[in-house]
Amino acid sequence: MSFEAVKWASGEVILLDQRKLPTQEIYIRHATWQAVALGIKEMVVRGAPAIGVAAGYGIALAAAGLTRPSLEGLRPAFEGLAATRPTAVNLFWALDRMKAKVEGGADAAALLAEAHAIKEEDLAMCRAMGEHGAGLLPEGARVLTHCNAGALATAGYGTALGVIRSAWASGRLREVYADETRPFLQGARLTAWELHKDQIPVRVITDNMAAHLMSRGEIDAVIVGTDRVAANGDVANKIGTYGLAILARYHQIPFYVVGPSSTLDAQTPSGREIPIEARPSREVTHVGETQIVPDGVGVLNPAFDVTPAALISAIITEKGIARAPYAESLKGHF
Amino acid sequence: MSFEAVKWASGEVILLDQRKLPTQEIYIRHATWQAVALGIKEMVVRGAPAIGVAAGYGIALAAAGLTRPSLEGLRPAFEGLAATRPTAVNLFWALDRMKAKVEGGADAAALLAEAHAIKEEDLAMCRAMGEHGAGLLPEGARVLTHCNAGALATAGYGTALGVIRSAWASGRLREVYADETRPFLQGARLTAWELHKDQIPVRVITDNMAAHLMSRGEIDAVIVGTDRVAANGDVANKIGTYGLAILARYHQIPFYVVGPSSTLDAQTPSGREIPIEARPSREVTHVGETQIVPDGVGVLNPAFDVTPAALISAIITEKGIARAPYAESLKGHF
Repeated sequence: MSFEAVKWASGEVILLDQRKLPTQEIYIRHATWQAVALGIKEMVVRGAPAIGVAAGYGIALAAAGLTRPSLEGLRPAFEGLAATRPTAVNLFWALDRMKAKVEGGADAAALLAEAHAIKEEDLAMCRAMGEHGAGLLPEGARVLTHCNAGALATAGYGTALGVIRSAWASGRLREVYADETRPFLQGARLTAWELHKDQIPVRVITDNMAAHLMSRGEIDAVIVGTDRVAANGDVANKIGTYGLAILARYHQIPFYVVGPSSTLDAQTPSGREIPIEARPSREVTHVGETQIVPDGVGVLNPAFDVTPAALISAIITEKGIARAPYAESLKGHF
Repeated sequence: MSFEAVKWASGEVILLDQRKLPTQEIYIRHATWQAVALGIKEMVVRGAPAIGVAAGYGIALAAAGLTRPSLEGLRPAFEGLAATRPTAVNLFWALDRMKAKVEGGADAAALLAEAHAIKEEDLAMCRAMGEHGAGLLPEGARVLTHCNAGALATAGYGTALGVIRSAWASGRLREVYADETRPFLQGARLTAWELHKDQIPVRVITDNMAAHLMSRGEIDAVIVGTDRVAANGDVANKIGTYGLAILARYHQIPFYVVGPSSTLDAQTPSGREIPIEARPSREVTHVGETQIVPDGVGVLNPAFDVTPAALISAIITEKGIARAPYAESLKGHF
């Protein structure tokens, strides 16, 4: 990768400011866990696995000054980082890993090592998912993806885009269509940017063009990431994913979900129990400085939706490919 | 109405500049047919019926200086106006009406009178559609609409929004959800503006939120306008309409299409034969001055899609309510 979304350097957390892409590639240094928490909340960094990696480093920052890190001393950092975004489970998973290390008596250096391990493991898992998923695609595949489940959303390589990168490397991929993904435009701004940087052919469509392309036979598969997979295989992912899954089913196009096992949440029985984050109105009412909704008119901004397991052709983790019934098949992936 | 999209005043055509809404309400004077043609092409005015009205006035402008208007003399105006936008059939219908008057020996005053008649009839048709359609909605209806099929898209009152206005007047309507309708944002900018101006409750969602709201039982009906209805009931309308129709069917929500009989095209057997306009890339790559797609990445921009008749619960014209099979039921509406 010619870029990293989350990096540790000289005792600080460096985040690529994803709000400024695709026109500016700016890296911001974060010297405190509070700064990292704000960076997660304001979406300097986003994407479920990348948020987990950043949170791990956030704890490492909080512990850096302490001779003997304790749960009590680190409580503000654990609570503050956990309160940033409610839907992605990887955040809580990463914080739990760090918490276990603290309980085991780890010092600051060991906590930093654990954060590094979370990042390295995520990258390795992305490459494994890529290998598993690429084999599902036909030769010359034209793939539609939503939001950004790429190197920018992970430690590198990506989940959905990891499958796309592997398919491209093995010559199976013809072209990627990237949904622009309103309101935050992760598809137009981020997926297009990182695929173009890797010279993988990509074109951007508005979210409402997907059905039209499907009806014309232009899409061979839909591949998305996920922020949380419930025990029954229901999937929370970026708003718009559920609608795409219905459109794919209607056109008999396979619909694949890709995420590391850290995204699986055995504690949540079904999608109904997944909290859906509501984000600020301004993301919908404005694009940049341009106001697109009249003053006085309300908007909705749920950041995620839930796709029922019944609409999902397969869920791909680093451990392999799970198919329905997911309550059974996912057990081996936890 | 406290505004008019298309108006004749002092020998000129006044168009409300819909590209500047919702933050600025600016009216532009057009003194020549060429100016009107450019206004249609660049979407100063848009919406199938409003385009027809504007084109009628464009011919009236072209004839204004002539003592004896002839088809030969007006050929550049007829051809220039016809070449502005390919999908909406009302444009060609209005030009055909003007052409018939020229052939019948009408002078400039009679041509202006015909253009006025097209406008007045459109308004009357909108009110009739509103009455027919409102009865289809349940008490307390929450309605989703796409794009702008309102007063801004017609001579006034609107087609889909005419039904919504009538339902509101009769107390049946609880709330409207307006899809923002990327890329040109007619829903966020125009539908929200005109409903808010009429104090009808409206909230804006991004196009990809519709399925999520449907799954939560928040939508009782989907109502859209149309740019062309083929003889078999297939409907061309703003990109995204087809996907919404699939989502409505999946959630067992009625999907209604509203348009004047001038939108029916008996010459086009099915949706396959309707030309789909491709519009400039910049509508997708930029919002205002903000660039949202990286340099070097291509986009698609089909302005319309085709919804097959099988997904449509009813088509409402000024003559009443047509239901499947449309090849039969629409005959009485031509």
